[in-house]
Amino acid sequence: MPPNRMAELRSEIDEINLQLLELLNKRATIASEIGKIQAQHGSQIYDPQRESQMLTILQMANEGPFSNETISALFKEVFKATLNLEEKEARANFLVQRKSADQKTVVELPDGTHIGNSQFTVIAGPCAIESYEQYDEVAAALVEEGVKVMRAMAYKPRTSPYDFQGLGEPGLKIARQVANKYGLMLVSEVLDQSQLAMMDDYVDMFWVGARNMQNAFLLRAIGKMNKPVVLKRHFGATLKEFLYAAEYIMSEGNDQIILMERGIRTFSQWTRNTLDIGAVPLLKQESHLPIVVDVSHSAGRRDLAIPFAKVAKASGADGMMVEVHPNPSVAMSDAKQQLSIPQFKELMKELRKLNTDLEPEPAGD
Amino acid sequence: MPPNRMAELRSEIDEINLQLLELLNKRATIASEIGKIQAQHGSQIYDPQRESQMLTILQMANEGPFSNETISALFKEVFKATLNLEEKEARANFLVQRKSADQKTVVELPDGTHIGNSQFTVIAGPCAIESYEQYDEVAAALVEEGVKVMRAMAYKPRTSPYDFQGLGEPGLKIARQVANKYGLMLVSEVLDQSQLAMMDDYVDMFWVGARNMQNAFLLRAIGKMNKPVVLKRHFGATLKEFLYAAEYIMSEGNDQIILMERGIRTFSQWTRNTLDIGAVPLLKQESHLPIVVDVSHSAGRRDLAIPFAKVAKASGADGMMVEVHPNPSVAMSDAKQQLSIPQFKELMKELRKLNTDLEPEPAGD
Amino acid sequence: MPPNRMAELRSEIDEINLQLLELLNKRATIASEIGKIQAQHGSQIYDPQRESQMLTILQMANEGPFSNETISALFKEVFKATLNLEEKEARANFLVQRKSADQKTVVELPDGTHIGNSQFTVIAGPCAIESYEQYDEVAAALVEEGVKVMRAMAYKPRTSPYDFQGLGEPGLKIARQVANKYGLMLVSEVLDQSQLAMMDDYVDMFWVGARNMQNAFLLRAIGKMNKPVVLKRHFGATLKEFLYAAEYIMSEGNDQIILMERGIRTFSQWTRNTLDIGAVPLLKQESHLPIVVDVSHSAGRRDLAIPFAKVAKASGADGMMVEVHPNPSVAMSDAKQQLSIPQFKELMKELRKLNTDLEPEPAGD
Amino acid sequence: MPPNRMAELRSEIDEINLQLLELLNKRATIASEIGKIQAQHGSQIYDPQRESQMLTILQMANEGPFSNETISALFKEVFKATLNLEEKEARANFLVQRKSADQKTVVELPDGTHIGNSQFTVIAGPCAIESYEQYDEVAAALVEEGVKVMRAMAYKPRTSPYDFQGLGEPGLKIARQVANKYGLMLVSEVLDQSQLAMMDDYVDMFWVGARNMQNAFLLRAIGKMNKPVVLKRHFGATLKEFLYAAEYIMSEGNDQIILMERGIRTFSQWTRNTLDIGAVPLLKQESHLPIVVDVSHSAGRRDLAIPFAKVAKASGADGMMVEVHPNPSVAMSDAKQQLSIPQFKELMKELRKLNTDLEPEPAGD
Repeated sequence: MPPNRMAELRSEIDEINLQLLELLNKRATIASEIGKIQAQHGSQIYDPQRESQMLTILQMANEGPFSNETISALFKEVFKATLNLEEKEARANFLVQRKSADQKTVVELPDGTHIGNSQFTVIAGPCAIESYEQYDEVAAALVEEGVKVMRAMAYKPRTSPYDFQGLGEPGLKIARQVANKYGLMLVSEVLDQSQLAMMDDYVDMFWVGARNMQNAFLLRAIGKMNKPVVLKRHFGATLKEFLYAAEYIMSEGNDQIILMERGIRTFSQWTRNTLDIGAVPLLKQESHLPIVVDVSHSAGRRDLAIPFAKVAKASGADGMMVEVHPNPSVAMSDAKQQLSIPQFKELMKELRKLNTDLEPEPAGD
Repeated sequence: MPPNRMAELRSEIDEINLQLLELLNKRATIASEIGKIQAQHGSQIYDPQRESQMLTILQMANEGPFSNETISALFKEVFKATLNLEEKEARANFLVQRKSADQKTVVELPDGTHIGNSQFTVIAGPCAIESYEQYDEVAAALVEEGVKVMRAMAYKPRTSPYDFQGLGEPGLKIARQVANKYGLMLVSEVLDQSQLAMMDDYVDMFWVGARNMQNAFLLRAIGKMNKPVVLKRHFGATLKEFLYAAEYIMSEGNDQIILMERGIRTFSQWTRNTLDIGAVPLLKQESHLPIVVDVSHSAGRRDLAIPFAKVAKASGADGMMVEVHPNPSVAMSDAKQQLSIPQFKELMKELRKLNTDLEPEPAGD
Repeated sequence: MPPNRMAELRSEIDEINLQLLELLNKRATIASEIGKIQAQHGSQIYDPQRESQMLTILQMANEGPFSNETISALFKEVFKATLNLEEKEARANFLVQRKSADQKTVVELPDGTHIGNSQFTVIAGPCAIESYEQYDEVAAALVEEGVKVMRAMAYKPRTSPYDFQGLGEPGLKIARQVANKYGLMLVSEVLDQSQLAMMDDYVDMFWVGARNMQNAFLLRAIGKMNKPVVLKRHFGATLKEFLYAAEYIMSEGNDQIILMERGIRTFSQWTRNTLDIGAVPLLKQESHLPIVVDVSHSAGRRDLAIPFAKVAKASGADGMMVEVHPNPSVAMSDAKQQLSIPQFKELMKELRKLNTDLEPEPAGD
Repeated sequence: MPPNRMAELRSEIDEINLQLLELLNKRATIASEIGKIQAQHGSQIYDPQRESQMLTILQMANEGPFSNETISALFKEVFKATLNLEEKEARANFLVQRKSADQKTVVELPDGTHIGNSQFTVIAGPCAIESYEQYDEVAAALVEEGVKVMRAMAYKPRTSPYDFQGLGEPGLKIARQVANKYGLMLVSEVLDQSQLAMMDDYVDMFWVGARNMQNAFLLRAIGKMNKPVVLKRHFGATLKEFLYAAEYIMSEGNDQIILMERGIRTFSQWTRNTLDIGAVPLLKQESHLPIVVDVSHSAGRRDLAIPFAKVAKASGADGMMVEVHPNPSVAMSDAKQQLSIPQFKELMKELRKLNTDLEPEPAGD
């Protein structure tokens, strides 16, 4: 093992990196001047023919070891970056990216509840609003356990067009009435930008489901709203795609975003999805946004809710989401994963055992 | 011991077999009714906890000689068979489901082009419309090769909000102008239901991309249009979810749907996705809709376009889609997978070798 | 929602289940008598022709809703179970399966260390034994932190035949010498049954790696040894396959097995594998064997070792495994995931914060 | 502003481009040397932490106009290109790697049958040898269809230790007797190196199953045999790992290796595995070894055998493997995927339709 030789080579690389950096920036300065000239003459900045010529010159000069194809690919990135610089450098810094070790976004709800501020927040509620009675019963139980934020799902994205699709606006009315009675904050899934204006009257926080994680129109429209949003990872999405989806929202001005890890689709079949718990520390490293873990959809079975709640807390997440229903076996959706109220109370008790930064023990319980 | 005793025992076994048969089918009938109730309430049919309860009851009642383990194993097979039956039945009433061996939907375009009618249709064109010149050059090459349907992408769904998002309506104007010049049909991706009315003036067929495969609002809105649609499988979607997405469209009255297999996301990293070629015969078994294979996005590398085109044809697909660009190395998106025009001509030549049901050899070539 | 109707149907199913149970056992009793007759006459028990006849009778009598194919499949299971009953019912109860809520196997090492007995055990050490100095330095650090079980890898299974394959027996000699000096227990990977006799002299516990999880010859051979074994899940194996691999060992008489979850292969690429933390509670439900989490290979990056250690503990695992190296950047394998000694001490400190059932705080630290 | 200024700026850009080119290639040369050192020590080439450090240095040195984000993005492309180069180089010296466009290994069997020599070879036979009658019946059918190579599986690797494990050496005796009667070549799975000497007397070709794809002891031992081998891809293995497994064999001197693609494990559940048909052209690009497609295990359902056979042929594979049984419904293993003899004949008929490089139409059929 020649650690010295390795260190030597690495320091050469570092030196070349800095030379490349200098050249790239020098190139950008010149390109920017060209861009200004073009702008004065009203010609488009993007000039594929000029790019093609430059690539030809480079390929003729190339002696390897990089192949001509690789050199083309690299310079295309340089061209693209240059174009970006000229057209939208102001926006090019990714907004979701953590800029310093202590940067963190704290999401604030109208009642003063904070998410992302070192407490572990529990979001709970039934999979779907089904009736006043059902919703009221759950709400009462949540309040007893000190929960502040309640699911208020009135539009359910379903695999089959014939499955229960939610109560719609009447459901939202029920939820608002119950929320006002108990002083709860509501979070509700929006499926299409056309719903935003109406839903804005009922809910305290929007929710973008997995199926819409890459619906650019919806993300941009929410980016223009003045309200927090929970953004759920698609079960097939990489963490990069997840962060870029958040960027769609934030690039429109709304930074009140909570990321939600919810399990990914793998070959493993004893759970509905595979909880990707590594996503929590990785997203924390990359982004300043709060992150919560969905312990219901990740497992798809209620007997894992308590272990997953403990795991979520241990992972450093800012909170978790769990589905609670007065009578899960007759629930209109997700019957297998919703907790009954006693099961939910058991879960909260287990969480409280872990330590003291959770909401305090309910009085008189 | 006399052979009579053996015959006697065997006839007892035969008798028990028939009783088992009757009970199994009776059980299946009841389970099927339960399945229908669950389907109406949108709950998943597979219920591991109910199965667990049943096994516990059986194990407590079991007096041998079969061990509890064996009884569990046998009943798990019964559960699995029942589940298969219920799922098959649940799908039987779906509109996308094939009802007889020879049922097939043929999609017809305004110029009389048919897709799904035993010919192998090639859909081609650049990843995105970039300019009149670029689009015209590709169109001319397609016409030379006998292609009738051209990609006309003016809205690009991108991972990053800062990437090139397409030319928008001006791009559609370019595409229509070029299409009219050459007599080509246009297919174009729609990202949001709000675009449908405008796009309806320019294009001959809509395209729903992977990211929108489960955007129920968009699917339903297209279901109300009087125009064919290509529906692309999400890279994380099961075939069941894919068919159910088509059902969203068809349930609104539009049956002019072409399914597009495009590769799924797996652990394998030498290709962008893993082409799931088994999807073609399986979707053919289940559905009467035509199916085409995207040979560009499934591989994500142009050196696989020709083998994948051959494979698509051999699989029984109704056609394929391939990206073609005059100068792929400067393309504004998907640079690594678009074919150059000579590469595309090579692909068409290879396809023509396979047999004669493809578009005829271009004249004067 | 008609919960009454549902309950009614379910109770009918329960009734049929019990009738099926009775018939199946009656059938087994008769078949067992036939088996005895056949044995007396020296004929083989397995009789495919007779099975084929029975299937034909059943298919002719079958009126659905189960298809003939399904009925055949179900009865084939019955035939197989009957055959199993006759030939090896004694073994048919899976040994790894938990038989009661409080059943648990505690693995005991020669120095009295217990794994699976409510304490959280840390197994640590370098990826591979490289030299006396390297191994001694790590051992000293482990002892300071109260660790009792050390990795002693002398045979490395590598993807490439040209990669470092371990020091072999000389490495084991080093490890034993160091272990004796510090009073540590050794666990070491065995790649082939031919190594067992030799390794038995050096190590306190065997280790079956992921690549050998389904090597039946090796598993059976270890099942005959009188020494505990760590069995690592293959990154592509389901939990059922993992438990069945353990059964191969246990069916030969050795129940001193520790299961190790180590991440599965998914599309996600920011970590080497995806830690399947749900495996811990699920395996605990199914089996009485202790389970530990490999926090090094699951992430493949050392910056996740601390969060994964916390998560492992929270999940209910009996312990964890972490790679530690005096100078990870020059390690001969797994350089990116091994912890330095200070990083390992930090990890142990974080674990001790969680609660008190870990090994006590080291003296004089 | 005068066009001269524009030309001037552009020529400055051209100059910088060439300097960048030189630096990039210089950097690649050094990185390649680092890669070689890493390869010697068996560490993975991809090192996210080193990349992270380099980016930090660059961001600290960056003075614009490119933003830190853009600089990161550009250098990430450089890292990626470098990584590709290093990995390509690392593989270049591998024996399994194709060194020229026309290099190909042709496997030759004792009867003169060639695999990999432009013909499409069909390997067929029952999942397991069960009896003389069963084996003889299949053999007769294979010979009628012109098949030369027959499966002769006497040792079955099974998930459960209690499942049928094969007839062992008596099975091999049956197979040899039948093979001699019909002039067939035999291929048989070996599970452990201890079996090689005995099996060498009975079979014409060894077979390494998926579960043993990374059993280094077995691979090396086969590498020392003077007999061809079929090497089956593990369902969780990347193509790189698959080629490296072949390298284990070839590095010991045996180049008579046939690679077998058999489907990978994905989230998709309508087939047992997902046939990775892209593996065929990719392995052909990388390696000179023949490759065949297992159409039985990839699908796990016999109704896909014919489409998969066609697809295999279209993909450029050198052959395929299919399971055939006289009465699949009573087969002792893999009942769902084995073809009956009439189904097999149908498959061969369909293959013959495709073109003429297959074995000729059987005489008198």
